[in-house]
This record gives sequence, structure tokens and C-alpha cells, in this order.
Amino acid sequence: MIIIMNNEVTDAQIDAVAQRLKSWGLDSNVSRGVERTVIGAIGDESKIDKELLQALPGVEQVIRVMKPYKIVARSYHKEDTVIDIKGIKLGGRQIQVIGGPCSVETQPQMDEAAKYVAAAGCRLMRGGAFKPRTSPYTFQGAGVEGLEMFRKAADRYNLPIVTELMDVRQIDAFMKYDVDVIQIGTRNMQNFDLLKEVGRLHKPVILKRGMSATISEWLMAAEYIAAGGNHDIIFCERGVRSFETYYRNMLDVTAIPVLKKETHLPVIIDPSHAGGKAWMVPALARAAVAAGADGLLVEMHPNPCEAWCDADQALNPQELVDLMGSLKGIAQAIGREL
Amino acid sequence: MIIIMNNEVTDAQIDAVAQRLKSWGLDSNVSRGVERTVIGAIGDESKIDKELLQALPGVEQVIRVMKPYKIVARSYHKEDTVIDIKGIKLGGRQIQVIGGPCSVETQPQMDEAAKYVAAAGCRLMRGGAFKPRTSPYTFQGAGVEGLEMFRKAADRYNLPIVTELMDVRQIDAFMKYDVDVIQIGTRNMQNFDLLKEVGRLHKPVILKRGMSATISEWLMAAEYIAAGGNHDIIFCERGVRSFETYYRNMLDVTAIPVLKKETHLPVIIDPSHAGGKAWMVPALARAAVAAGADGLLVEMHPNPCEAWCDADQALNPQELVDLMGSLKGIAQAIGREL
Amino acid sequence: MIIIMNNEVTDAQIDAVAQRLKSWGLDSNVSRGVERTVIGAIGDESKIDKELLQALPGVEQVIRVMKPYKIVARSYHKEDTVIDIKGIKLGGRQIQVIGGPCSVETQPQMDEAAKYVAAAGCRLMRGGAFKPRTSPYTFQGAGVEGLEMFRKAADRYNLPIVTELMDVRQIDAFMKYDVDVIQIGTRNMQNFDLLKEVGRLHKPVILKRGMSATISEWLMAAEYIAAGGNHDIIFCERGVRSFETYYRNMLDVTAIPVLKKETHLPVIIDPSHAGGKAWMVPALARAAVAAGADGLLVEMHPNPCEAWCDADQALNPQELVDLMGSLKGIAQAIGREL
Amino acid sequence: MIIIMNNEVTDAQIDAVAQRLKSWGLDSNVSRGVERTVIGAIGDESKIDKELLQALPGVEQVIRVMKPYKIVARSYHKEDTVIDIKGIKLGGRQIQVIGGPCSVETQPQMDEAAKYVAAAGCRLMRGGAFKPRTSPYTFQGAGVEGLEMFRKAADRYNLPIVTELMDVRQIDAFMKYDVDVIQIGTRNMQNFDLLKEVGRLHKPVILKRGMSATISEWLMAAEYIAAGGNHDIIFCERGVRSFETYYRNMLDVTAIPVLKKETHLPVIIDPSHAGGKAWMVPALARAAVAAGADGLLVEMHPNPCEAWCDADQALNPQELVDLMGSLKGIAQAIGREL
Repeated sequence: MIIIMNNEVTDAQIDAVAQRLKSWGLDSNVSRGVERTVIGAIGDESKIDKELLQALPGVEQVIRVMKPYKIVARSYHKEDTVIDIKGIKLGGRQIQVIGGPCSVETQPQMDEAAKYVAAAGCRLMRGGAFKPRTSPYTFQGAGVEGLEMFRKAADRYNLPIVTELMDVRQIDAFMKYDVDVIQIGTRNMQNFDLLKEVGRLHKPVILKRGMSATISEWLMAAEYIAAGGNHDIIFCERGVRSFETYYRNMLDVTAIPVLKKETHLPVIIDPSHAGGKAWMVPALARAAVAAGADGLLVEMHPNPCEAWCDADQALNPQELVDLMGSLKGIAQAIGREL
Repeated sequence: MIIIMNNEVTDAQIDAVAQRLKSWGLDSNVSRGVERTVIGAIGDESKIDKELLQALPGVEQVIRVMKPYKIVARSYHKEDTVIDIKGIKLGGRQIQVIGGPCSVETQPQMDEAAKYVAAAGCRLMRGGAFKPRTSPYTFQGAGVEGLEMFRKAADRYNLPIVTELMDVRQIDAFMKYDVDVIQIGTRNMQNFDLLKEVGRLHKPVILKRGMSATISEWLMAAEYIAAGGNHDIIFCERGVRSFETYYRNMLDVTAIPVLKKETHLPVIIDPSHAGGKAWMVPALARAAVAAGADGLLVEMHPNPCEAWCDADQALNPQELVDLMGSLKGIAQAIGREL
Repeated sequence: MIIIMNNEVTDAQIDAVAQRLKSWGLDSNVSRGVERTVIGAIGDESKIDKELLQALPGVEQVIRVMKPYKIVARSYHKEDTVIDIKGIKLGGRQIQVIGGPCSVETQPQMDEAAKYVAAAGCRLMRGGAFKPRTSPYTFQGAGVEGLEMFRKAADRYNLPIVTELMDVRQIDAFMKYDVDVIQIGTRNMQNFDLLKEVGRLHKPVILKRGMSATISEWLMAAEYIAAGGNHDIIFCERGVRSFETYYRNMLDVTAIPVLKKETHLPVIIDPSHAGGKAWMVPALARAAVAAGADGLLVEMHPNPCEAWCDADQALNPQELVDLMGSLKGIAQAIGREL
Repeated sequence: MIIIMNNEVTDAQIDAVAQRLKSWGLDSNVSRGVERTVIGAIGDESKIDKELLQALPGVEQVIRVMKPYKIVARSYHKEDTVIDIKGIKLGGRQIQVIGGPCSVETQPQMDEAAKYVAAAGCRLMRGGAFKPRTSPYTFQGAGVEGLEMFRKAADRYNLPIVTELMDVRQIDAFMKYDVDVIQIGTRNMQNFDLLKEVGRLHKPVILKRGMSATISEWLMAAEYIAAGGNHDIIFCERGVRSFETYYRNMLDVTAIPVLKKETHLPVIIDPSHAGGKAWMVPALARAAVAAGADGLLVEMHPNPCEAWCDADQALNPQELVDLMGSLKGIAQAIGREL
């Protein structure tokens, strides 16, 4: 931690900062410059309360030197973490495309969806049983029955299932239907009690980025899960809020190389929620793979014009097949496979 | 709802849209312009699935005419709603300043805080027992014991208490200690399961705006609470995420007149979390009152330099007294009182 | 400047940084912490090329300690600068409301506007002769003839005039019509060649904030003007770009106390362009004055429904009179006058 | 144009809107819904003043149906425009990587840079002679002498040159040194007088996106150039301002498919200014090509650690060679060539 004092600082104020650091077990290095005095805190930075230092008289600014995240940091684990989902590897050389509808509607819809997902060459399936909807007056998801339909449809094709958990009270149902990958949605990225709960489970977790979460906040949210013992965390960038109104969210493709540098955990992209329109999905999916993403979450509906939710962003089965084809070439060009 | 068709639309596509509208019970008004055909949907707009229309062939854009919120809308209830909190009115002519520390630490700290809050002329008290912290390694709040300390300290001065609810499993404790106003924090603004639960309670709810929530999404989050039967909702603007790095969040002062137009419910401002620095609080608090806010949430700590959380944004007791003084004059200038 | 080295830094890399600093005339203070080595640069920070340091091997992060602005900084000139505009003081105890239409249209329109501006108690008048319009196909301003009409109308009421300069080639005309205050618009905040030119003039300059300029960039843009010798600079906050779509721009009211701390120069607010709707203007204007603004730029048109530009954001004459009344009380409440 | 009236609208107000539309030569289609009356304007939408309609009594909202841009719109010219720059095609099957240093420093630096740019297989060269710098106290570019050095160095390798124009007064020098492609920088995207001037030239123009310009505003800025007769416009996305602080700007990769849909003009990406760090460039460059960009602007310096400007974002010669290699495979995978 570096503490920059203001230009009218007194010796007593400098001493007070040093004393405070000492009370946390850290030493100080005082550097008196021409216009500013700077205090370096030497020792375990995690013991410091930054806001408290900032409140001390004479302090102008406090700057963190160390990254606040530990377990999820690349420095904690140098190699890429590869997560095993019923034998399917995520985070390694093979890129995983997780396909499926926005929401679970009916058994026939899920059966058909699973068939098309498998046929396109996807190895995992997505689908929402509990849906976070902006309006209380719209379809809120099929709930527990949805989990049952999903499980049944996916099992026929040996597709592990990915679905969103919104509330701690749904965990029992998730265990009952043996959900393979638990998704924490954008609106719950900092629902810390929920993060703590999934941190205790032995299931891989996809952690979607909050609507306007910084990468650092996102890593810290993952740290909540990791601190509970569950290290099988997958980051999912799905577009962030911006001033642009042409599309729904702005896909932050730069987050891919940044996360690859900062963390050892896998990174996937959701091009469907990012753009919000089916015709944008192929370009965004290709960009994500080219930039180094380990996988994709792609919405596909057997019949998009009849979807109960986000109908305009789902690919139809043929579009998913075409997309898989074009992604194959890009994966090869960067030394990976699909 | 207005449906704008693209410039190569066919009659069959126009018919398909009309048929779909009919299936929801709405009529159509087709207007063929020089360059675009526009279809107006006549009837109950809330029956329409916008995304589904957008997915139909030939549709370029679908525009909502009606506001999606109902119970919270000004059109639903013309007069300002005044919420009664143990005899104290929020939303009327009198402006309420809710003072207190960021977090509940110890009984003596809360006792002192309550004394100063009352002495400054505040009629309600705030304090966090359950704290949403960015890092899992920092103080997470005093929990249920915190509620007990808070209740005890506040009761001595007859101050109703305001505190944050983070998880449905804490509701029993909130009921036990008879929390007077439940706060839903920024990170939980779209935690829909939590909103549904507080919608069933008979307690006023302060709904903080999400970090980058639009005003419309915020109103819809309130609608979740209202739809459950609880209409005592207070909007709290606390700064939104922006590109500016000088301060923590950008206080959206324009949200005040906008909410006053769109909803009948009270609007308060949290200048402490917005700016993130104690020295910014007076200017922001004055601006909020001048713009028409019904109240303020202000952090005050008996000894800011010893606070366990957000030490640099809390006013000290004397600063709170001074602030109350300057707010009085502004309240009078706009025909209100403090 | 503080240079944080990465955790695998070598002595040779530390030496290289120190050598580089020496080449610029600065000494180094090396602090070897447990996990990071930090180098403090001691001497004149303005001699350092930050990007170059960042490019050196082993460097993780370079942090500026000093503010990059000089002449405009509060530390350069402790007292508030009061700018004299033909005897009218801006930046002192008296708050100035600069009223007038968005654009100069006709002589009768300007004559009437001037009459109403004066009658409402405003002491300066605004109006655009050269207009930055998003579309090349809309009215681009009355140009030089507009300046003539404006001058004539304002002189009848002894109102100094404020108008926007868009291009260096218009300066001669501005001198000919003796424009009293030159406005640099949002889109030109970083048109550095234009800033350099107005830096050579002896006329007060209103520098509007760029659409998404940080406060630091804005202060540096002012520094361009000041470096040329012209220190009569007025900052004008007019709303910044955000994700919110309900209104045009988000008024950054926090910029007022921040600028008051960082610079000695006056700060005014444009509530008309911020919200973009006439009905939002009173609340925003009141908030600005309460937060400490030295003045306002307010659009008023004798007949808004006939305005050639931004018709929906102009107050009518009576609304301006009413606004002035309500601002008076707020000014008094904070120890100022209108 | 669609005009939505508020729910208390009177017949007289509806008539007034219809009359106003008639005065501009448009007919009206009035659709009286259950809760709202909607007026459709039938005729040439470009004749309508939207703000003026919005100011009329009873009007709640005015929605544009047609895109405001004409010449640059895909509907104006269905096929992709391919721009010929001294025989090199931009916008066709072949992707162009424009390499070179941030700024022109010395003749030897430019000679070396040109050699490496050509050797890496780039067919065009970039370099700044006039530099928009945040601070007035830093290097402002080599100016006209810089143009001369650049021309000389590039001619040896037959590389057409791309350089930024900041001020109308520099145009003569640009003509003298026969600059092949004129770049309009981010800060000047809405410097309308400058756009009008380059609209009169017969030189291709790279129009960089403003720091927080919407895609619609960007297209309208291009329309200013096109309206003057110069249709050889190249859009360059270079990252936009966001809340994220890890990197400099957020690359808006979604802008690529959006522009490809909305305009027939070429689209290129500047990954160097987007991320602001050399190590981010390869991932962003790959993403851009995969998403459909027609070219890239990439900073390369013969010796980045000695660069006079943005040293930390330039690739070194070998990194450029490596990048070109990896881009080749991606280009092939999507049916293009490098």
C-alpha cells in the first residue's frame, strides 16, 4: 500500500499513519519528495483497511499495490485450470459451445432443443428454469418442473446441463436434479450470500459478469466462491452496460485477454445476451474465440418465433450448425479445436 | 405498441403481425408510409410479448407506447404517497434526514451514534448489520447481534431504524427486532426473489438504485415489491457507475424530478455513498434537497477515523449538525421544512 | 511519480528505471517490500514521460503523485478567481444566470429575447450564431449575420453576450462584433488548436465539458487556454453521456464541489442541455446553485414552440421569471445572492 | 415519424400536430388507442423538426422511423464500397493492416519503421505528425517537418501514408506532401467545420469514432463528409469510454457487424489505442478480423522503449510479424485474405 500525503502534511500526521500501519503489523518507508511525502507500507497489505487510512488527517490518496484477489489469481496457480464436467474439459485446448434455449418451456421443446444441440456438435446444454425477468408480470420460468424437463431431455443425448440459480432456497432442487453446472446470473454477481452458498457446493459455477462490474469486482466475486472451497469457477462475459443504444449490451472482448492474464480460471462468452439480436451472434462468437475464449453460451431455440423469452436473440437450429462450422476454422487458426 | 416494418416488407408479413396481435386480443392499425409501413397495436399492451414480435419476419423495430410499470406509476395514484414510519412522515412537506454509521460495530459506538443523530435533529437512524463487502476477507457486519445493538441504541432516542436486508433467510431476525424500514441495497435491486419476499411484508422498503440501473428498470424492481401487496416503497438514488474516477459514483440528481413525474412514491438520496468522501456530502445533500428529494441517507460516525467500514465518507457529529443547519434554509426556500 | 515493479523484477531492471529517472533529473527512492518493489521518483514530476516508464521491462504500474495541471490549479492561486465581464462579476458572491435562446434566428426574435432576459433579472445573454448540429441537413446557424443581430439586440439592454466559437476562422468576426464571452462547446473541448487560439485572446472563455471528459481532462483542456496567457476561464458542466435514456445527458452535480476544490476558476452549469427538456430545468438549476455553482446558462425563447433548434428544452419568458424567483431563496440560504 | 400523444390529449392538440406536419408537406394517420393516441407522419421525414414537435402541447414522445443518414447508408448503396488507395484496395476481400509508430520523431526512426512495416507485409503506413495531446506541456508532434520525414521514409517502400489532420489550416501542408489517407481523430469526430473541409477533398478519410459517440452520431459525422462530395470514408473503431479502469478504452467489437449492416463503407479497428497496452493488441486484432473488420491500424515502433509518445502500446517489429502470421489464419477461416 502506498500512502500519498497532501502538500501541507505535518510530521505528526506522518507519524500517525506509521503508527496505524504498525498496529496492523506493517513497517513504513517514508519518502519526502519535493512536493509530496509518500509512505510505503511494508508487510502484509491484506491487513490494511484502506478507507480508514484515507480518513486520517494529512492523507491525500491511498493506492493498493497488491491485487486484492488471491485464490483466483494467476499468481496463485500459474497453469490454466481445466474444469472437468462429466468428462468434458473446459479451459483446455478444446473450446466448448454450450447451446440451448433461453428458457425451459415444455418437454417437447426441450427434447427437440437437445436433439439439435447435440446434432450441431455442442457437448453441453443450457436452459433457464428460474428466470430473472425485468417485469413481475411476465413469464418467470418453469421452476422445478423445468429442471425435471431439462434433465430428461439432456440425458437422452448425454449433455451435461447448465442452468441459473437465483435463490439459496432453490439449491435442494438443483441437487436433486443433479445440475451439472450452476450459473450465477448478472444481477446476482454480488449477491454475496448466494456466492457463499455455491462456494460450499461441489459443482462448477459459471459466474456471469455484473451489468457494470469492473473486472476487479468480478474477480472478487469469484473469490467469494473460491474462499468457500469451490475452485471450479468459470467467468462468463455477457456484455456490459454502455451509452450505445443500437444493441443491448456492449461485449467487452478485452476482458478475455485481461482475465487470461489475471486468473487461471476459464473464460467464456455469451454473445446472445450481449448483442441481444440473433444476427449479431455469429460475429461476436467468432471474435470471442479469436480473442482466446474457452467457450461460448449460445441461445438456440427449435423455433425462435415461438420462444417464450428473448425470442429475437435465439439462433435457429441451422444457424447454430453454421456457426459451429465457422468457429472450427478460427479455433484451428489459433491452435485450438472445437 | 407500435411495430415498424422494414422497407422490403410483404403483405403476408404484415398479416402475420396482425394475426399475432389478434391472438393476444389486440386490433391493428396499419399505416403505409412512403418508406415504411407502421402497425399500431390497439388494446391492452401488457398482453404483448415484445421480443416475440421482434422475432417475426419483416419487423424492424417494436416500440412500447405505455409505461411497463403500473402500481408505482404516477398515473395509478395522482397524489404523492406519504409513508408513515412510527408517526414520522416521509414523502410529505417535511424532509427526513436519516443519519447513522455505515455499520453497526459495538454497543457504545451505536449508543453514541444514536445520541448524536437525535441531537442533530434527525428523526430516523441508519446502520448496517449485514454488510455487502466487495472482498470476502473484510468485516462482513455484526449480523443479528448488530440488529440487537442497533435496536437498543435507537430505542433510547425513539429513532425508527433503517437497515439493509441481504438474504431471505435474515427476514425472521428483521421481524424479531422489528426493523422499521428495510433497505434493499444496490447489488440486490434486481434480486427478484428477495423483492418478492419484502413485497409480502408490512414494512416500508427503501429500494436503492442498482449500480447502472435505468430509471425504468428501477421502477420495475419496485413494481415487484408493489405487486406483492407492499406499496410503502421509497426510492433511494445513491450514485451510478460512470467513467469518472475522481469520486466513487456519479450522483444522478436528474433522477429526482424524473421520479417525481413518473411515480407517486417518495424519493431520497444517499450523498455519502455517491461521492464516497465526507467533504463532498454537504454539496450533494444541498443539491438533492433543492432538486426536490424527500429525504437523505447520511453517514455519520461518532469517530470517523475509527470506523470499521467506509471511514472516509462518514461525517463527524459536528459536521452533521452543520449540514442540518444549511439544509434548513434550502428547505424553506422551496416551501418545505426539515 | 511512483513506479511499482512486478513481482519478478531484477536488480538490473530496477537500475534501468533509476537511470531513466536520472536522465530526466530525478532521484529515486527504492522500497523493497515483501511482495513488490516500489520506486519513488524524487524531483520535478513534469519532466517524466509516464508511458515510457510503463514500457520499461519489470514495470507493472506507474502512478502520478502530482496533478498534471498547474495554472488552473487551486494550489497555483488560492483565492477564487472573479472574472469581470463589462463590470459584471462572475465567480464571486453574486450568481449569474445567463439567459437566451439556443440559436439566433431573426432580429425580432433576438430583440424580444433580450427584452425578456433583462426583465427576468439576468445580467448576461446567450445565443448561438454558429451551431454544432448532429446532421448536416439541419439549420447550421445564422453565422456572422447572427452575431450582428445578437450584438444589436443585447446592446439595447446592456447585456454582455456569450456565444459559441466553432472554428479558428470565425475569430475575426468574433472580434469585430466584440463578443464578450467566447464559448467553447462540448464537441470542441479537446480541439487543441482552437484552445490555443482562444488562449491568445483577451476575452473570457466558457469551456464546456466534453461529452465524456473526465474532470482531469477538462482541467487539462483549460490548461491549454491558460498556457497561452488567457486565465479568464469559466468551466461549464452540461451533463455527460450515460446509460440512462430517459433524459439527454446526466448532469454531474458532483463536479461542482470537485472543481471548487481543484481549481480557483468559476464553475457554471447548463441545466438546459443536460436534461434536454424544459420541465427538468428548474430542479436542475436549483440543485446547481445549492451545490455551489457560480452561474447558470439557461435557454429561454420568446416562443419555444417556434424555436429553430432544441425547441423542447427552452423555457418561455414566464418560466424564466419563476425560476429566478426560486433561485433567489436558495442563493440566500447558502450566503450568496442572485 | 411517429408522434405519441399523452393520455390527456385534446382534439385541438391533435389538430395542431397535424397542421404542423402539413406545413412541412406531410400527411397524418391518427390512431386512437385505448390509452394513447398515436399520430403517424406520412411523407418525407427529413422535413420534420423533431424537437419542435416535441415542444407542442399534448405530445409525449416523437419517434423517428427512418435513419437520419442517407449517403453513407447501406440502403443508398447496396454493395460494399471498396476504396482504392494507390492501387491498394480497402473494403474488399483483402484485409489491410496499417502499421507504424504513434508519432513521427526523426528521419532515422521513420526510415526504420517503414522498413519493418513493409517487411511485416503491411501495405500502408501510419504515423502522427500533428498530435492531440491531453497536456499542453508534452510533445505536440513534429508538424510539417514530420510530414516530410514520413513521406520520404514511406516512399522508399511504396507505402501510402495515413496521418491525422487536426486543423483546417494544415490542409495545404497535407496537399503538398500528398498525404494518401487523412485521419480525423477521436476528439474531432464532431468538429463539423473540419469535416466539411475534408468533404471537399479528393482523399480517402479515416473517421475515428468519438470517445463516447453512438454509432448513429458517428454515421452522421460521416454524412457531413459525404454531403460535401467525398464518399471515400473509412470508419475506425478505437475503443470507447467506459467505467472499466483496467485498460484505456473498451473496444466495441459489436460495432463491426452493426456498421456492416448500416453502411456500405469499410470498417477498420485500432486495437492499440483501444487497450492501450501492447500485450492486449494481438487478442483484440484477432477478434476484430474474426468479427469482420476490413483492416487494422496497429502501432509499431522500431524501439518502443524509446518512443516519444504512447510507448507502452506499440508493438516491436517482431511482434508485428508474429501478429500478421496469426491474422492470416483467421482471415482464411472466414474466407478472406491478409
